[in-house]
Amino acid sequence: MEADTTLSDKLHEECGVFGIYSLDKREVAGDIYYGLIALQHRGQESAGIAVSDTDGEMGNLKLKKDMGLVNEVFNEKDLQNLNGNIGVGHVRYSTTGGSRPENAQPIAMNYIKGSLALVHNGNIVNAEQLKEEQMFRGLAHYTTSDTEVLAYEIIGERVKTGSIEEAIKAAAAKLRGGYAVVVMSPRKLVGIRDPFGIKPLILGRKGESYILASESAAITSVGGEIIRDIEPGEIISITQEGNFSDKSLCQEKHAHCIFEYIYFARNDSVMDGIEIHDARVNAGRALARKKKVDADIVVGVPDSGLAAAEGYAMESGIPFALAFHKNSYIGRSFIKPTDKERQTAVHMKLSVLNNVVKDKNIVIIDDSIVRGTTMKQLIEMLRRAGAKAVHVRISSPPFLYPCYYGTDVPTSKQLIASHHSCDEVCKNIGADSLEYLAIEDFASMVGELPLCTACFTNEYPV
Amino acid sequence: MEADTTLSDKLHEECGVFGIYSLDKREVAGDIYYGLIALQHRGQESAGIAVSDTDGEMGNLKLKKDMGLVNEVFNEKDLQNLNGNIGVGHVRYSTTGGSRPENAQPIAMNYIKGSLALVHNGNIVNAEQLKEEQMFRGLAHYTTSDTEVLAYEIIGERVKTGSIEEAIKAAAAKLRGGYAVVVMSPRKLVGIRDPFGIKPLILGRKGESYILASESAAITSVGGEIIRDIEPGEIISITQEGNFSDKSLCQEKHAHCIFEYIYFARNDSVMDGIEIHDARVNAGRALARKKKVDADIVVGVPDSGLAAAEGYAMESGIPFALAFHKNSYIGRSFIKPTDKERQTAVHMKLSVLNNVVKDKNIVIIDDSIVRGTTMKQLIEMLRRAGAKAVHVRISSPPFLYPCYYGTDVPTSKQLIASHHSCDEVCKNIGADSLEYLAIEDFASMVGELPLCTACFTNEYPV
Amino acid sequence: MEADTTLSDKLHEECGVFGIYSLDKREVAGDIYYGLIALQHRGQESAGIAVSDTDGEMGNLKLKKDMGLVNEVFNEKDLQNLNGNIGVGHVRYSTTGGSRPENAQPIAMNYIKGSLALVHNGNIVNAEQLKEEQMFRGLAHYTTSDTEVLAYEIIGERVKTGSIEEAIKAAAAKLRGGYAVVVMSPRKLVGIRDPFGIKPLILGRKGESYILASESAAITSVGGEIIRDIEPGEIISITQEGNFSDKSLCQEKHAHCIFEYIYFARNDSVMDGIEIHDARVNAGRALARKKKVDADIVVGVPDSGLAAAEGYAMESGIPFALAFHKNSYIGRSFIKPTDKERQTAVHMKLSVLNNVVKDKNIVIIDDSIVRGTTMKQLIEMLRRAGAKAVHVRISSPPFLYPCYYGTDVPTSKQLIASHHSCDEVCKNIGADSLEYLAIEDFASMVGELPLCTACFTNEYPV
Amino acid sequence: MEADTTLSDKLHEECGVFGIYSLDKREVAGDIYYGLIALQHRGQESAGIAVSDTDGEMGNLKLKKDMGLVNEVFNEKDLQNLNGNIGVGHVRYSTTGGSRPENAQPIAMNYIKGSLALVHNGNIVNAEQLKEEQMFRGLAHYTTSDTEVLAYEIIGERVKTGSIEEAIKAAAAKLRGGYAVVVMSPRKLVGIRDPFGIKPLILGRKGESYILASESAAITSVGGEIIRDIEPGEIISITQEGNFSDKSLCQEKHAHCIFEYIYFARNDSVMDGIEIHDARVNAGRALARKKKVDADIVVGVPDSGLAAAEGYAMESGIPFALAFHKNSYIGRSFIKPTDKERQTAVHMKLSVLNNVVKDKNIVIIDDSIVRGTTMKQLIEMLRRAGAKAVHVRISSPPFLYPCYYGTDVPTSKQLIASHHSCDEVCKNIGADSLEYLAIEDFASMVGELPLCTACFTNEYPV
Repeated sequence: MEADTTLSDKLHEECGVFGIYSLDKREVAGDIYYGLIALQHRGQESAGIAVSDTDGEMGNLKLKKDMGLVNEVFNEKDLQNLNGNIGVGHVRYSTTGGSRPENAQPIAMNYIKGSLALVHNGNIVNAEQLKEEQMFRGLAHYTTSDTEVLAYEIIGERVKTGSIEEAIKAAAAKLRGGYAVVVMSPRKLVGIRDPFGIKPLILGRKGESYILASESAAITSVGGEIIRDIEPGEIISITQEGNFSDKSLCQEKHAHCIFEYIYFARNDSVMDGIEIHDARVNAGRALARKKKVDADIVVGVPDSGLAAAEGYAMESGIPFALAFHKNSYIGRSFIKPTDKERQTAVHMKLSVLNNVVKDKNIVIIDDSIVRGTTMKQLIEMLRRAGAKAVHVRISSPPFLYPCYYGTDVPTSKQLIASHHSCDEVCKNIGADSLEYLAIEDFASMVGELPLCTACFTNEYPV
Repeated sequence: MEADTTLSDKLHEECGVFGIYSLDKREVAGDIYYGLIALQHRGQESAGIAVSDTDGEMGNLKLKKDMGLVNEVFNEKDLQNLNGNIGVGHVRYSTTGGSRPENAQPIAMNYIKGSLALVHNGNIVNAEQLKEEQMFRGLAHYTTSDTEVLAYEIIGERVKTGSIEEAIKAAAAKLRGGYAVVVMSPRKLVGIRDPFGIKPLILGRKGESYILASESAAITSVGGEIIRDIEPGEIISITQEGNFSDKSLCQEKHAHCIFEYIYFARNDSVMDGIEIHDARVNAGRALARKKKVDADIVVGVPDSGLAAAEGYAMESGIPFALAFHKNSYIGRSFIKPTDKERQTAVHMKLSVLNNVVKDKNIVIIDDSIVRGTTMKQLIEMLRRAGAKAVHVRISSPPFLYPCYYGTDVPTSKQLIASHHSCDEVCKNIGADSLEYLAIEDFASMVGELPLCTACFTNEYPV
Repeated sequence: MEADTTLSDKLHEECGVFGIYSLDKREVAGDIYYGLIALQHRGQESAGIAVSDTDGEMGNLKLKKDMGLVNEVFNEKDLQNLNGNIGVGHVRYSTTGGSRPENAQPIAMNYIKGSLALVHNGNIVNAEQLKEEQMFRGLAHYTTSDTEVLAYEIIGERVKTGSIEEAIKAAAAKLRGGYAVVVMSPRKLVGIRDPFGIKPLILGRKGESYILASESAAITSVGGEIIRDIEPGEIISITQEGNFSDKSLCQEKHAHCIFEYIYFARNDSVMDGIEIHDARVNAGRALARKKKVDADIVVGVPDSGLAAAEGYAMESGIPFALAFHKNSYIGRSFIKPTDKERQTAVHMKLSVLNNVVKDKNIVIIDDSIVRGTTMKQLIEMLRRAGAKAVHVRISSPPFLYPCYYGTDVPTSKQLIASHHSCDEVCKNIGADSLEYLAIEDFASMVGELPLCTACFTNEYPV
Repeated sequence: MEADTTLSDKLHEECGVFGIYSLDKREVAGDIYYGLIALQHRGQESAGIAVSDTDGEMGNLKLKKDMGLVNEVFNEKDLQNLNGNIGVGHVRYSTTGGSRPENAQPIAMNYIKGSLALVHNGNIVNAEQLKEEQMFRGLAHYTTSDTEVLAYEIIGERVKTGSIEEAIKAAAAKLRGGYAVVVMSPRKLVGIRDPFGIKPLILGRKGESYILASESAAITSVGGEIIRDIEPGEIISITQEGNFSDKSLCQEKHAHCIFEYIYFARNDSVMDGIEIHDARVNAGRALARKKKVDADIVVGVPDSGLAAAEGYAMESGIPFALAFHKNSYIGRSFIKPTDKERQTAVHMKLSVLNNVVKDKNIVIIDDSIVRGTTMKQLIEMLRRAGAKAVHVRISSPPFLYPCYYGTDVPTSKQLIASHHSCDEVCKNIGADSLEYLAIEDFASMVGELPLCTACFTNEYPV
């Protein structure tokens, strides 16, 4: 499940958000820190926390953000300095070109009602157009991110309206795209999710504190309990007087990002009612039903293919085996090998347990093939260790189209499936057979849940 | 002359600015770096450089700024990355409370015409009011500095006007205070000085490059030559088509900050026609004429009192002597002594050359007394070394009132002269006699130059 | 398998060693770096590399070592600076008290024949006595480690003998303890393993380069192939003229550390002829044979219990399941939670996949119980997620005695098994049943291999 | 006086030493820190402090040393960690090639009597020979410095003798060179100075603490008082039972380094009975007597030429003037200009006060000319500012020969005087006249003090 920015042939999520408001005036920086650690798989480029004190004077916001992992950006003293009972946090992965320190979140500013901090997961499709309109009103931008555009829209509306919730609603009416946003205003924590529900946002509670987060695992990791998913289009406002929900932007058509279920979300999260691990096991089961293969063992590519491999093994009756050792000490600063002969980053990261695979017919499962480079090497490694046959099963359809809602996708030239047939890919990676999950199989994976499958089908909800 | 933030009992200037536009497309980051090194005495808290390429596409600005001295903030690789032929730089000292990294300059933003960077020395008296108006227009602020307010005023006007110069003029018409500002727009470098000329700004040239800087020494340090001071209220625009001057905001009444001549500016600068070193020597001469004293030697407090001591010696005929050794290795991270017995920061910084002062009647000169603490210790040190008498002469009047134009002044409770008579101060510091320069003596120091002397007289020009 | 210094209730290995000599004059720093990355699980406190050039003049050694993980200590420039065709590397975990930067290895010195660098895994039992003798000869010690004592013994002997191999043999004859050492002399790479073979050392080859390493996985990770284990007591010398082996210190009785097979070594290593993964699977099988349990699934504690769980599942026929999500972003600088209520470091690191365990009778396998704290929390987590019964199986005997050969063991007060019966431990951790592997079961794990099992039996080979 | 490693055309001293023993059990790290700040001019490459507690157990030494200035190497926490009542400190400048972190001092080791730390200023001429003998005894060296050789000699003797003082004496009997050494043994602080007294060492007292330092200014800076210089060849031992002096290595012939008086020592130090400032003023007076010149002002090159300029002015009656502004913000990380046109490091560091020198005949004084590069540029700057004539006077003789006792001298090819006559040098630097101090004038500078003048005369005492 967890994105490995160093080596893997994976798509990248762009962000994770976390917000918390302790009505009983507890310090919240610790919970945000642990919540972000739990969301780290959604973004490893930068991390940030903004906290303020709802009893304090306006503008008492404290902010720390920087490039790096959560446990690199924050030390104990930072957490002590970030004192306050309301706050938001963010982890970010960014597309090439936007990898600038100033784009790290939260975005924090002083506006007409005091300090405001905002965190955002997703992508505003019409950000450039809104930005231009803002500039014609005399605004200027410090960053190149759509998050700042979003913040200015809200702040601009706040002058004209009676509350931050009204301002967020007015701003949201102009936005097109997929987004989950948490806004910290001096006395309120407000969350909003795009009307299609492309991006996830869930509400939880820990004692007298309310939490909004991208995934349920962030809530349970800090000892909280899940209340419910925020509805697509819903604006939820957490205040000292109670929680208020505005569903006037909600609409019937939903389109949840299928890749959250395939790969992005943590195995232990529950998202829009679906247990992620179950969805992945079910995908493996569906693969097993598609086309029988005569194999001795089923193995998953660590860690993203393990759940589907488990499902495949259950459905097929072929034994599940752990066939790879994973070196977990390959961090962000790992120097990639350039030795052309044999030694590669994949070899450093994963190695084969020889006796497990020797003389075996193997089914190997991964969640997706993007460029195909990693799978090709793994198959070579298995054959070198004595595997007789290697049958590849992928728990998602061929990836063909770009995402406009915040997932970082390579250009189609780099997407192996966009210019090769399934047979060609099979040959290219050196497999004995190759099967993808079909779009039709999603139902067995996530049931009736309405999905955004644009990256496979070119049919975009927005 | 140079402000010593570590130890000294001195007032602090708030900033130095530097801008350069190379019409023949030379790289300018090196000149900005050396210009800022030459202006470092005006601010040691943070430093920054923004550069762009006038031939490049809009928004190609590069920025580096951080807390620290110029040679701490920038390394060679930084200067290489800051490529472009137009740029601005800044050194900053800040008042307590505003010492935040985000307040470092240049302020750089993307506005309707591309990228803009702005550097500012001084203080906008009505910044809070302008900020509030901006907020009512839906703007928000990342910093707590008046520089950002100023930038937004200019950007806000730019939407309504035909040029950046017009926008700056419209913004300036609303500003109250003392300021020298340099703005880098995609194709223009524009400077403006407040109508009273409280803050300095000077124009120079190095080959085909034009330079705007707080002091002439920054221009000559990089091998340039001085053209002329920018007039109070003048807006100067340096462009590929030539330099254009708009003097429509100029007014008759000027009020140059007297403390530039007494202390802030470098000894080797020329400011509004006055050689700074000459002014200080003249102040020393004026002190010598005030009241004769029977002494063996005249000594200056290094380094700020040396020029006046030289003047006093010339005028009085009493020999000039170097009586102190100064340890120049006491940097920003120096750990101040807490040992109560004898050892103090002043003892570490300055020590007495015993044989020079033993059995001598001494005149000691410094440029100002703020709290009186340093002078008290120096007198003790001289007496311990065998000085028979110590007569203190100060080359400025007693410092009594706050400054609203950008100089950092302690509260009046801390100003020894604000609640003690001259005799009381003399007794307090342990001197045999004490004389200040009088306001009337400024004429012999800087001639006819109109001055702001509000810190001595409570008469503010704005 | 891999030691988790942050959170886990595990024993700690003290070191991994790596040496390489490229006879065809390739640069070796890259291979050492990747070899150390592959050995990182053996020590995460400090890392170091020393390299020299066998064609260069004597004393051309380059050294870099520091506290931290391999990819924290070295950047690309470091590897470029470490140029040479012979070198040694080291990763270190240290016992409390000895965690000083100066104790990082390699130890590098100039001795009578030029520069020498030495890396060491293990513990010299009589180091203090040898150190005292050295001091009486006028030597002094920079470090508090036994590695320096070892280096001085070799150097001291070198004056009296005709070769470095002779000196190493003479020194080794005096050593008591478990050790694997690689010495880089100006023209030779020499390895030695203690006569009992307590610590591992294996020989490999990559083209014209010979490699000595603590584990085979370090050799295969850099694209090399395994030649053979170094025999207990053997001294092997790799030279331009060929490899020479001196077995005169070899003896019949061997005693390989059982914990390498249980926990320390990588799953994909082969050590003294045994595939580590097989040994662990076999341990799980042995556990399954011991006492039947009526369960729905078998789960392993990630990652150290997974292989034994796989074996248990195979032997028992109870299905293997992945029941935990592991957060792999909890690095060395992770701030541990202090929140007493519910949130703990274990909760952050591992979370339960609820649907997998709900209403299930579970067998959970781990490799050892040291303090019992982690297992207690995992059981609580499983029960909270709805597990009906939790049966604990441990793939090693109760840990009772200290290790004198280089493994870091808590005091017996902290060892839960040293003062509690099996039933008491079972009750303490909240399990429904608890079984340990018996000493007698080792044969089914590693066959005839002679073992050091002192930590379970109090019978020490030396 | 203070060495400017960045820019200046100066010789470099190699070290400053400081040792303190508080008999009344005060913490001493603070005094060492301030003492080293006061000695920073003697070495800016690395700094270190070792401290231990005379009541503690053997081997309780704490050490911190690193590359950098004293206030860069130590922060407040470091000083708190360095707790103890006895300690030594060191600042180091090193010759090219030896600039390695491991050569930083103090050298600290555990030897037969516990921990020992040693600091050293000077050079052991026969270190290589002693090192070889040590290696034949089985010793090895971590560093390439003669300080480690010296430490091993003492430690080697300590085994054979009854006290550390005896061991130091036995070791010293074998040393040839110029040196001042302070040794911290578990219960004693011992100082030794070479028999010729080439290097300085002075004893002071602060309350119940005794201090040994390279210069008196280090003692007075920490609030201590001077007791006396250590005699050449004297070994002084400071103990709880009193101070003991062994003069058995003392000899009649002394040879104090003349460059301490000319340049190295601080102006405010007293060394072997001579006030440094007086010596320099006297050198200036002697220059004035040598050859009259018709000039308007006498100026010194800041800061090293100021004292001699003062003396020249007094003797000649020509007025002293400050003609240069010095930028004190050019630190170690300053990026040197490469712009060929006009801008140079000297221009950044020093600038001319134009009105002071315009139309004047000038005598300019500096303490030495090494390569001649700086003086050449200063003369150009003076002429460009309008000086009519520039007469150069140097307060030392032409520098011709290398130093074997610890002063870093460029190769003779770089020494301008070694291959040019005085007239040629005068022409080369563009002066109107040039005069050096003669060897015969030393008597008027330092009286009867016996001197080492080998760098001028090629007559070496050792």
